[in-house]
Amino acid sequence: MLLGPNRYGKAEIRVVRITRDADVHHIKDCDVGVALSGDMAAVHLTGDNAAVLPTDSQKNTVFAFARKHGIAEIEEFALLLARHFVDSLPSVHRARVAVEEYLWDRIPAGDGADGAGAGRTGADGTRASGTGHSFVRSGRETRTCVVHYDGPSERATVVSGLTGLTVLNSTGSEFHGFAEDEYTTLRPTRDRVLATEVRASWRHRAEHDGFGASYARARGALLAAFAGTHSLSLQQTLYAMGCRVLEECGELCEIRLSLPNRHHFTVDLEPFGLDNANEVFFAADRPYGLIEGAVLADDAPDAGFAWE
Amino acid sequence: MLLGPNRYGKAEIRVVRITRDADVHHIKDCDVGVALSGDMAAVHLTGDNAAVLPTDSQKNTVFAFARKHGIAEIEEFALLLARHFVDSLPSVHRARVAVEEYLWDRIPAGDGADGAGAGRTGADGTRASGTGHSFVRSGRETRTCVVHYDGPSERATVVSGLTGLTVLNSTGSEFHGFAEDEYTTLRPTRDRVLATEVRASWRHRAEHDGFGASYARARGALLAAFAGTHSLSLQQTLYAMGCRVLEECGELCEIRLSLPNRHHFTVDLEPFGLDNANEVFFAADRPYGLIEGAVLADDAPDAGFAWE
Amino acid sequence: MLLGPNRYGKAEIRVVRITRDADVHHIKDCDVGVALSGDMAAVHLTGDNAAVLPTDSQKNTVFAFARKHGIAEIEEFALLLARHFVDSLPSVHRARVAVEEYLWDRIPAGDGADGAGAGRTGADGTRASGTGHSFVRSGRETRTCVVHYDGPSERATVVSGLTGLTVLNSTGSEFHGFAEDEYTTLRPTRDRVLATEVRASWRHRAEHDGFGASYARARGALLAAFAGTHSLSLQQTLYAMGCRVLEECGELCEIRLSLPNRHHFTVDLEPFGLDNANEVFFAADRPYGLIEGAVLADDAPDAGFAWE
Amino acid sequence: MLLGPNRYGKAEIRVVRITRDADVHHIKDCDVGVALSGDMAAVHLTGDNAAVLPTDSQKNTVFAFARKHGIAEIEEFALLLARHFVDSLPSVHRARVAVEEYLWDRIPAGDGADGAGAGRTGADGTRASGTGHSFVRSGRETRTCVVHYDGPSERATVVSGLTGLTVLNSTGSEFHGFAEDEYTTLRPTRDRVLATEVRASWRHRAEHDGFGASYARARGALLAAFAGTHSLSLQQTLYAMGCRVLEECGELCEIRLSLPNRHHFTVDLEPFGLDNANEVFFAADRPYGLIEGAVLADDAPDAGFAWE
Repeated sequence: MLLGPNRYGKAEIRVVRITRDADVHHIKDCDVGVALSGDMAAVHLTGDNAAVLPTDSQKNTVFAFARKHGIAEIEEFALLLARHFVDSLPSVHRARVAVEEYLWDRIPAGDGADGAGAGRTGADGTRASGTGHSFVRSGRETRTCVVHYDGPSERATVVSGLTGLTVLNSTGSEFHGFAEDEYTTLRPTRDRVLATEVRASWRHRAEHDGFGASYARARGALLAAFAGTHSLSLQQTLYAMGCRVLEECGELCEIRLSLPNRHHFTVDLEPFGLDNANEVFFAADRPYGLIEGAVLADDAPDAGFAWE
Repeated sequence: MLLGPNRYGKAEIRVVRITRDADVHHIKDCDVGVALSGDMAAVHLTGDNAAVLPTDSQKNTVFAFARKHGIAEIEEFALLLARHFVDSLPSVHRARVAVEEYLWDRIPAGDGADGAGAGRTGADGTRASGTGHSFVRSGRETRTCVVHYDGPSERATVVSGLTGLTVLNSTGSEFHGFAEDEYTTLRPTRDRVLATEVRASWRHRAEHDGFGASYARARGALLAAFAGTHSLSLQQTLYAMGCRVLEECGELCEIRLSLPNRHHFTVDLEPFGLDNANEVFFAADRPYGLIEGAVLADDAPDAGFAWE
Repeated sequence: MLLGPNRYGKAEIRVVRITRDADVHHIKDCDVGVALSGDMAAVHLTGDNAAVLPTDSQKNTVFAFARKHGIAEIEEFALLLARHFVDSLPSVHRARVAVEEYLWDRIPAGDGADGAGAGRTGADGTRASGTGHSFVRSGRETRTCVVHYDGPSERATVVSGLTGLTVLNSTGSEFHGFAEDEYTTLRPTRDRVLATEVRASWRHRAEHDGFGASYARARGALLAAFAGTHSLSLQQTLYAMGCRVLEECGELCEIRLSLPNRHHFTVDLEPFGLDNANEVFFAADRPYGLIEGAVLADDAPDAGFAWE
Repeated sequence: MLLGPNRYGKAEIRVVRITRDADVHHIKDCDVGVALSGDMAAVHLTGDNAAVLPTDSQKNTVFAFARKHGIAEIEEFALLLARHFVDSLPSVHRARVAVEEYLWDRIPAGDGADGAGAGRTGADGTRASGTGHSFVRSGRETRTCVVHYDGPSERATVVSGLTGLTVLNSTGSEFHGFAEDEYTTLRPTRDRVLATEVRASWRHRAEHDGFGASYARARGALLAAFAGTHSLSLQQTLYAMGCRVLEECGELCEIRLSLPNRHHFTVDLEPFGLDNANEVFFAADRPYGLIEGAVLADDAPDAGFAWE
């Protein structure tokens, strides 16, 4: 028997960092996962733990680093951690650090009664304007990153992204001219609802100091391309979204998208003497279409282990 | 053996209603549940279905009503449905209709790149300003209502509410002076994080024509009271939130709140030579405190079956 | 403003109790929730915590009681806790303790390769026969109880139950002769799949010392009645299940059932030149029928606060 | 911009197949996902769907194949489907078909009151003995497979597995001798609870006609190795489990395991004057350790695209 690829670490470390700027507080709310690999044959074969830093110590490190270094952008925090584990432990050759960030708005100081969450945060999680220490969870998407640092090659890779960005076009979507076989009963349509929950990850060409602005640009490009594309298929929309992100974000070289096609079926109301010109839909859960694809810049460097 | 209280119906009917206002579309995205009760002894005792309108017909009714009447406010839609079932079926004496509404923002027509979801919707689900047919799911809370209509008494009750409104104060919360017994090890604190995920339901005095504005006022009052209360206990905050809602919403007479105390524990960093003046927290999942309570207006009428 | 009904406590305390019987271990794996009520006006109105035992102390009590008293049956454990809180704290007039129990089988000592989980546990969570300290989670259902103890009346109530018991009859179910209205398109059927996920709670007449055997009898009666009833409607099946439990369990006086009708639709395969005599089904998630009802013994005593 | 790797298909097709063997019915309850790839540049770049078989047709195919061919073992069903899509559509070069199977026991014909689910099924989903048409969902694990078929190379790969197999050793687990750094506070232990929820996938050397028996052997080997290994670390247990599966299943050549370390912390009861010799534990949710690793047979052939 041979031991194959392996890694270990602590998952789902829920760390919340409050920064007190006089009376104005800032919040970063994260879920961190660490996975280390290297000289780990002995622990698998004999249970010798000499090369194994406990996952409990990894957890402690995340909390201590949040105190010492703060969490400016999740990519920076992940890079600090990944380098630390590789550089301080000879048995660890590579570290993978993944972070999810949950976003918060400020509750307006004066009056929350507009119901509109004024004072909404940008991609940095909190906003400089406004006052106070009261927050409300915002948005439905989660900002993500996955960072690798490899000791022998001294190479780091950074992938950022998001999950849970749910979008819908109520028109401007068609589907026809498709292949048909003996099991095809679907009828072509010139007008349908197109809805999806975007899961996207994009690879940075290199480390840089604008991860927050980069996230805002990429998110905005995804929304703009989804809204602005007259769609003949969800694949076309996926490709348009990927291209738009790379066009607007020169710091990125590749993007991967996973788009479930959340079907909205037009309900047949004829039995009740009613027409239904794309006004009433049944939103189905399962099954759903699933469209996955990648777009790369023409000069994208080799990804290495970035996507592992 | 005796047959006790019973009801039946269709649950989780996912209906999406698009309204086309020239080039500007509006969306209402709902989950509807129907429960009917009445002369149902025979079906239980012998399987005689003569009194039973199929749950499939109830589902059809929801879709047909969405086409015929639109969905202006979920409370109005629920009232229409509840009255319909009771009035059209002699065997049905009472109907309960519950609706959850999922909220959407418009994707800005010009440029989505600000990352800030400009054009956010108010409590009516969509905003008159802005253009287009592209939407992004907004907020984390779900707007809810539960409506009852009783045939014999011709009485309707309306309870509105929300779930999933997650809020946090990073200071301004204390907990001390509590009872202690032989199992008490908790130490009093003068400064802690207070976080909760609000589940609230409020009872209307009567039907009215301002359910949308009422929701916005109540939501705003919850946020304002949470943010504005210097808290000595989560119970105090709960009561302040309930009072604020009733004070600002004369159309309401009762509110019930369920507030999980989402503990944020200050991490002990002393072993690593670091202080931690409420800057780094571990956000725990379980167990959690759970605080439940109601506030009533002095002149609240009898609730009847409103909370069933 | 008036403070209405309220309670507070610690929810989702995950306690695992291992009992070492020489080389044979026994496991009880529970989730405990405590809710206390009484003289709690001050904490709501002014934040005065003098009457408030911290939820942290409640959690400690659960762990300490698991050590001191063990967890024989979850109902007994809940009763011990409920009485303790009421009897030791003057401000607490009533305690509600809810327990969920997760069930485990033993992994057979000799050989796990039969794939069949021999050595399965009965209702007591573990089995006396067999050896060892290795377990595998079994079944999909969760055993539950909710206990109340009221100080002023010195009355205790015990409700036991289960959730997540998923059952299916592949024939022996009909649905026809139902009421029809203008929105009815469903066609009657003489043979359909009937599937549901049973949520049931049953009320004991009094405390007794056979909660484990009672649970096994009630669970068995539910299964036997579901399997043994030729069904003309899910309501009929519900009533049969309730009656069977009460008939076989004289210690019980009331049962409440909630049965989602998990629709299995016969797929139309005619377009592909295939018949489908109830052989291939699409298992739908939403919407679903929801049938709720109670059955009581003729001489059932008043429930009091048992169902709160 | 370049289009990178892509695929599309229908996910989460919930198909239930009933086979009527005179009065004895058999059930296969599956969730099927299809993903196709090939000449798909046009649909991405221009929205030309000529190469795209609708995901709706894929869904229809799954239901029609369930009728025509039955579902003997999920691997066989997946292979039939994968070959069909590649062989019948020139634009499709490769198909990936993933199946999850949910397991059912028979409800005993005579009497369900033993609470023990006699008549439990083996790996084939149902048991030949016993009678009737009544079933109860069994076990907590889900049986899985992922099959690929590649047209140009005419090569198929088969990976089987399971998720959700939750196991626990209440003793026989140690953890000491580990690496320590400045963030290490964990103390070594000679006796701890070891609990995990096994996610495992194993690769077959080739297609064969014993997938059902193979699954039972692999599942049994996982349980036997978990129970039979005195563990010095979860990595050691992982490797032992992997080796045991490959030793007992000559038809397999590789296994990949993902084992979350579900921490059970011994509760400190000293403040209450109680000892706690590994009797009372707090079962934590998050964070958790996560141990991932692969074991390969010495002569394992190249995996190709099996794990994609």
